[in-house]
Amino acid sequence: MNKRSAVSNASRNSLRVLLDLDQVLADFEGYFLELFRQKYPEHPFIPLEKRKGFHLTEQYKHLHPDAVEKTREIYHAEGFFYNLPEIPGACSAAKEMAAMDGVDVFICTSPMLTNEHCFVEKIRWVNDHLGPEWRGRTIITRDKTIANGHILIDDNLKILGACARPTWDHVVFRACHNRDAKLRGRSVLENWTDGSWRDLIEDYLKRI
Amino acid sequence: MNKRSAVSNASRNSLRVLLDLDQVLADFEGYFLELFRQKYPEHPFIPLEKRKGFHLTEQYKHLHPDAVEKTREIYHAEGFFYNLPEIPGACSAAKEMAAMDGVDVFICTSPMLTNEHCFVEKIRWVNDHLGPEWRGRTIITRDKTIANGHILIDDNLKILGACARPTWDHVVFRACHNRDAKLRGRSVLENWTDGSWRDLIEDYLKRI
Repeated sequence: MNKRSAVSNASRNSLRVLLDLDQVLADFEGYFLELFRQKYPEHPFIPLEKRKGFHLTEQYKHLHPDAVEKTREIYHAEGFFYNLPEIPGACSAAKEMAAMDGVDVFICTSPMLTNEHCFVEKIRWVNDHLGPEWRGRTIITRDKTIANGHILIDDNLKILGACARPTWDHVVFRACHNRDAKLRGRSVLENWTDGSWRDLIEDYLKRI
Repeated sequence: MNKRSAVSNASRNSLRVLLDLDQVLADFEGYFLELFRQKYPEHPFIPLEKRKGFHLTEQYKHLHPDAVEKTREIYHAEGFFYNLPEIPGACSAAKEMAAMDGVDVFICTSPMLTNEHCFVEKIRWVNDHLGPEWRGRTIITRDKTIANGHILIDDNLKILGACARPTWDHVVFRACHNRDAKLRGRSVLENWTDGSWRDLIEDYLKRI
């Protein structure tokens, strides 16, 4: 956390934290694998400890010729995004974070454009897991570089867009697919359960 | 356009323009009135030249005791947002703007949380009227203050949120309901057809 640029761009004395949804609050990878194995019990699969790279289908396509179609059947299905289980401790941490003095928390989520159900399902997920008032704190955008926050907690290592120098510091959330990733100076949040997210937030709060 | 603050916060040399959807690109007020008069031909209504204030139902509720329910029936209906007609010249202007060197254009739209259909309908509207690639340039957020652009073109006069000093300058888009509004130093764009939007964009381009 040596990068102070985001903090110096602060527009007021509230810390704005942007939380990615899939794989930070909602367990995309675990639920995908569960459904895939249920639906295709004979098909080869990639256990979570062997997942590599952000795009699941990119890895599955090397497994079997029909894997691309089968993976898409799972995550394009109606209800997939709505039914994602919570990452352990994520929602209670988000709620506790939002209740901290001087912290504004937003959900910042990229829609899957090939699954139109995801738009409303993401909002319903937020409603049910966090509460209706969180719908007003949810930003649905493919380009996260134009969200003006101080911290973006996201499992995706490559967050690119129109804004070459986003206002936020990217804190990498640990996921099966980024286990061996180069952090390139970024902080990492290993989970929501060991309490280290509080240290992260408190450290930023001291600096704005 | 004396406010240079947004421009000095530019993250790179591309001008990021945020376009509101309802009543800037899509004719919410006109379509609402058309449907209202079709569905309730005997009911009193407010002609567009007498509309005042951003929230339509706030004005209608003084007309008749059941007007609140009837207005909501119109804009909560499935298909309402998808079927909004285009504001004259809006989409060709948006496309021309996006094709200008050094300009990135985004749609920045606030969802109506009481109409869940609106999420996917807004995306489908963008897809059909602007093109599929514009879905990736669409930001759905109740809080527009945390969208990091240089200009926000929006008919709503009160755009408040977590960020007390947004990066953008608010350019007011003229609408029936803001005809007599105090601009408080803001620029105004009267329409998409007289070509003045080009002067606005070119003026900003000189300053970044």
